[in-house]
Amino acid sequence: MDALVLMDNLWVMVAAILVLFMQGGFILLEAGSTRMKNAGHIAGKTIFTVGIASLVYWAVGWGFAYGEGNSFIGLSDFFFGDTSTAEEGLVGSVDFFFQVMFAAIALTIAFGGFAERAKLSAYLVFAVLFTAFVYPIVAHWIWGGGWLSELGKQDFAGSTVVHLTGAMGALAATILLKPRLGKYNKDGSVNEIAGHNQVYTALGVLILWVGWFGFNAGSTLGVADAFFGYVALNTQLAAAAGAVAALFIAWAMTGKSDVPTMLNGALAGLVAITASCAFVAPWAAVIIGIIGGLIVFFSMKFFDKARIDDPIFALSVHGVAGVWGTISTGFFATPELAEMNGGSAGLFYGGGLGQLGVQTLSVVACGAFAFIASYILLLVTKALIGGLRVTEEEEIVGLDLSEHGSYGYPESMQGQNKSTGA
Amino acid sequence: MDALVLMDNLWVMVAAILVLFMQGGFILLEAGSTRMKNAGHIAGKTIFTVGIASLVYWAVGWGFAYGEGNSFIGLSDFFFGDTSTAEEGLVGSVDFFFQVMFAAIALTIAFGGFAERAKLSAYLVFAVLFTAFVYPIVAHWIWGGGWLSELGKQDFAGSTVVHLTGAMGALAATILLKPRLGKYNKDGSVNEIAGHNQVYTALGVLILWVGWFGFNAGSTLGVADAFFGYVALNTQLAAAAGAVAALFIAWAMTGKSDVPTMLNGALAGLVAITASCAFVAPWAAVIIGIIGGLIVFFSMKFFDKARIDDPIFALSVHGVAGVWGTISTGFFATPELAEMNGGSAGLFYGGGLGQLGVQTLSVVACGAFAFIASYILLLVTKALIGGLRVTEEEEIVGLDLSEHGSYGYPESMQGQNKSTGA
Amino acid sequence: MDALVLMDNLWVMVAAILVLFMQGGFILLEAGSTRMKNAGHIAGKTIFTVGIASLVYWAVGWGFAYGEGNSFIGLSDFFFGDTSTAEEGLVGSVDFFFQVMFAAIALTIAFGGFAERAKLSAYLVFAVLFTAFVYPIVAHWIWGGGWLSELGKQDFAGSTVVHLTGAMGALAATILLKPRLGKYNKDGSVNEIAGHNQVYTALGVLILWVGWFGFNAGSTLGVADAFFGYVALNTQLAAAAGAVAALFIAWAMTGKSDVPTMLNGALAGLVAITASCAFVAPWAAVIIGIIGGLIVFFSMKFFDKARIDDPIFALSVHGVAGVWGTISTGFFATPELAEMNGGSAGLFYGGGLGQLGVQTLSVVACGAFAFIASYILLLVTKALIGGLRVTEEEEIVGLDLSEHGSYGYPESMQGQNKSTGA
Repeated sequence: MDALVLMDNLWVMVAAILVLFMQGGFILLEAGSTRMKNAGHIAGKTIFTVGIASLVYWAVGWGFAYGEGNSFIGLSDFFFGDTSTAEEGLVGSVDFFFQVMFAAIALTIAFGGFAERAKLSAYLVFAVLFTAFVYPIVAHWIWGGGWLSELGKQDFAGSTVVHLTGAMGALAATILLKPRLGKYNKDGSVNEIAGHNQVYTALGVLILWVGWFGFNAGSTLGVADAFFGYVALNTQLAAAAGAVAALFIAWAMTGKSDVPTMLNGALAGLVAITASCAFVAPWAAVIIGIIGGLIVFFSMKFFDKARIDDPIFALSVHGVAGVWGTISTGFFATPELAEMNGGSAGLFYGGGLGQLGVQTLSVVACGAFAFIASYILLLVTKALIGGLRVTEEEEIVGLDLSEHGSYGYPESMQGQNKSTGA
Repeated sequence: MDALVLMDNLWVMVAAILVLFMQGGFILLEAGSTRMKNAGHIAGKTIFTVGIASLVYWAVGWGFAYGEGNSFIGLSDFFFGDTSTAEEGLVGSVDFFFQVMFAAIALTIAFGGFAERAKLSAYLVFAVLFTAFVYPIVAHWIWGGGWLSELGKQDFAGSTVVHLTGAMGALAATILLKPRLGKYNKDGSVNEIAGHNQVYTALGVLILWVGWFGFNAGSTLGVADAFFGYVALNTQLAAAAGAVAALFIAWAMTGKSDVPTMLNGALAGLVAITASCAFVAPWAAVIIGIIGGLIVFFSMKFFDKARIDDPIFALSVHGVAGVWGTISTGFFATPELAEMNGGSAGLFYGGGLGQLGVQTLSVVACGAFAFIASYILLLVTKALIGGLRVTEEEEIVGLDLSEHGSYGYPESMQGQNKSTGA
Repeated sequence: MDALVLMDNLWVMVAAILVLFMQGGFILLEAGSTRMKNAGHIAGKTIFTVGIASLVYWAVGWGFAYGEGNSFIGLSDFFFGDTSTAEEGLVGSVDFFFQVMFAAIALTIAFGGFAERAKLSAYLVFAVLFTAFVYPIVAHWIWGGGWLSELGKQDFAGSTVVHLTGAMGALAATILLKPRLGKYNKDGSVNEIAGHNQVYTALGVLILWVGWFGFNAGSTLGVADAFFGYVALNTQLAAAAGAVAALFIAWAMTGKSDVPTMLNGALAGLVAITASCAFVAPWAAVIIGIIGGLIVFFSMKFFDKARIDDPIFALSVHGVAGVWGTISTGFFATPELAEMNGGSAGLFYGGGLGQLGVQTLSVVACGAFAFIASYILLLVTKALIGGLRVTEEEEIVGLDLSEHGSYGYPESMQGQNKSTGA
């Protein structure tokens, strides 16, 4: 293998490690955004769901996504064991290692919709089903040679494949699980259920930001022209713009710039640029990030009022910003970058409505598929395990005790477990 | 220097940084697994013990491990200052930088056996002695051209050299220090002393998992054939399998899948695959990880009952799983990979009992040496500083106050320090 | 682009990601060193100030630092959008991506002086001004072809450019803001205001240590001769020596080795070696680190007595150790390394007083400029927003509530917010 091929593999290897590190960001983001009584559960479940996702994606997910098959699904290469060395491109193991990390991220995003009320067994069963049947099919459509890739869909690093798919899983879950106890009052008014640790959430966002350079810049799948740097530049600018925009809109609209909204702005900028980072100019990345930061604020308010309880803001951050990001390339893709990375130029560069149409179609198709499939598989899960949600008493006590038998913070929770026998 | 040589150095450099980052995982794992009154001490000691390990390994450890010498010990290259550039292989500084990180990890593992009761001065003195005399000698035997490497011992990334050696240090310490106050009742029954923060432990495990790709995949010491990807694939599968197996065995045996056991399952899978990641097929990595996850559960129960108090589970995770991992290559090593990476094929591939015998011998020899040497050096330490353990009163107050003069969490511990003058 | 050029870009890309990760270290270090009531604010502000720094440095900072101009300032390349591919050296985007991370670190250091009493709006305005006018000018003088680079100033990775500049911003801020309520008694005695979480601070220091290999070793700006390994070796030794030295001096002088001092010793070693890592022998790195660890202890005491309230110890760690590090190359730079990396040999190698003079001049000039400019810009900020500091009542309640409307730890702070309407 020559030096350039090895360097491609080396870069993607490093990028995959960064994407795995994003799970640490999610541990902190999710634990910090929820209550102390559920913290050990929320943090711990991330580890075993990464475990399940890895095993299932190895057994069947990769085969459905990238195996030989048809426009809808791949059907070969199960129990991935490709050990051949390649003369060019990525070796099988590096390719798999990078892709399995994306599958695990999509699952973790979907589990945002489960927070603070789903049974442990619901996590276990849905992890298998989602990683086997939902994520790989969308990945096949767009990245595995399926029908959307044939149409020229642009999704450089997975605004649709990873973020929207995960968010649709979260949406299906949060609808079926219903809101957390205490979230909505009988008169229709909304209570804020504050997360217990903003240091966790801020550090979580920083770790996600760091890992995103594996996610986006690693999606170059190689080092040609050091193009990873261009992708990274756009990613940095969009994240920055999202954070600042969300800070100001929250301040302007509510009189206080609350920390969680600002943090979600950074994430929304990152999600939005994920599709477009290889297609747009730096100034456009700033605009895409600003709009991401603004819409995440309004989206959070919208879901709250719509009585859709979204504890980790997965729908707003990964769903709405993912849609915006996917569509944004239809506006901002430059002719040079579109030619280099696939697809056509955006509307603002005279590319007409073609690319915009493909992007919109893909959002609708993938979003609908991911939502419907997740919904059906959650009903299957519910039937298998006899209900998705813990009992009211268990929810009040917290899932640390009910699902795992001990508090995540036993010393801080002393005196609060009198209502349980644990 | 040509591009391939530089790339080897670059990859090992990145891998060494990842291994250093594992110390962050240990900070969280150890602090989270112990009580609030010791948290600042536990976290802080990791920083200065990395400091001591680095200086001692620089002064003498590297020389004992890799210097010119005999089958037992190296005896040159003290006060490492090799600044020559190499035409092939790693330059001296990169080689040292990678190796020093492993030495520091072994020490941190050993300190798992000190938790919540050893004096600060015991840490200081033992850090010097262990890094000078225990770790380098085992490293010399297996990686430095010593007698076990001459026998064809397979230990790709250090199941024995790092994990077993560290665990034996922890075992010697925990025997000499005796159990923590309150761990065992007079009637022989066992109290669980829960760690104070499962978010820390879960994030700690995730960080260790991330860093392990430096540990294992970096042990390729280069980029040839992008073989790091294969090692990473096996590492990921074993970690995943360990986490899932431990989750289910705990659930099956106790009715609750407690978070710490599941987390230890992931670590046990990682420790087990550390020896074998370059020698086995992916399906075997899954099996090695599953067995790692199962045995860690039973091992934790065994040590608890045997009245060996192991607060961070170092004996089970790094010791027992380390032994299993080392021996597993004797069963699962494929002929192709054994030929490529040294040693012989395993029993299941018709390799006979030869490799299995070498692996077993190495575990016994290294384990015995590390235990006996650590035990003797701890007795030396005890004599030097007048006892290894803090007083009963200090232990009750906590080591944050007794050893450092201030709580790690002063605001949370208010009202609990009335028994002290601090 | 040939393989070596791509590898240079790849290494600097990875290094830049590591430098961004240092912000996670600062989140933990700063939040852990301050009180619970300000934790969400402290952690959260790091995210949006990274955002502001990125946007401002993109818009004007890079242009002032590296644009075509004169000896004092650059004046081109605003709104950085260089997408050209380079035949040698770094491509524009990678170069920018690395540099913007340094600008953000300098700003974060400066904000150490704001802790626990500055208004949110003060952060916002000063972030813009500092990133536009203070940091880039110093960077231009030393790294951008300005007058100090013409004199042969040695500052390999930014002891002066980043650490001293940031620390001078912190000094100006802490003087103008005045000490925190409760820090000094009327009789002149000093109260220690303990940080609330030493696990955070220890992990923060470890993360900074990890990221520093991007900061220092990445400042090779390429892979030639795998020299990054040599830089990393020196960095590791200095950090280790700083931690150990600070541990012992605190123990010797106060009878207790407090955790924060030891942690600051590690950081002081890192800051000190930042200037000299490419110029000195490993044994000298140990000495530079030891001295760094010792002076940080005395410096912390000095500022405390001088009634300069420095909550995060930015002045001691980044200022005093930064000065020591910059001057140390004037003593320890070896002839070979000085020839290779610019500048002259140090005094101890017969290089005379020349290099020592340039180093001292640069410290005085850059320190004075950064202090005066920051001081003036803070006065501008004060005028713009009507005062830099929150009210006494807001400070007592905490900045989480006063600046953001909710506690960072709402469950832990229950019962403490009775004095507010929030």
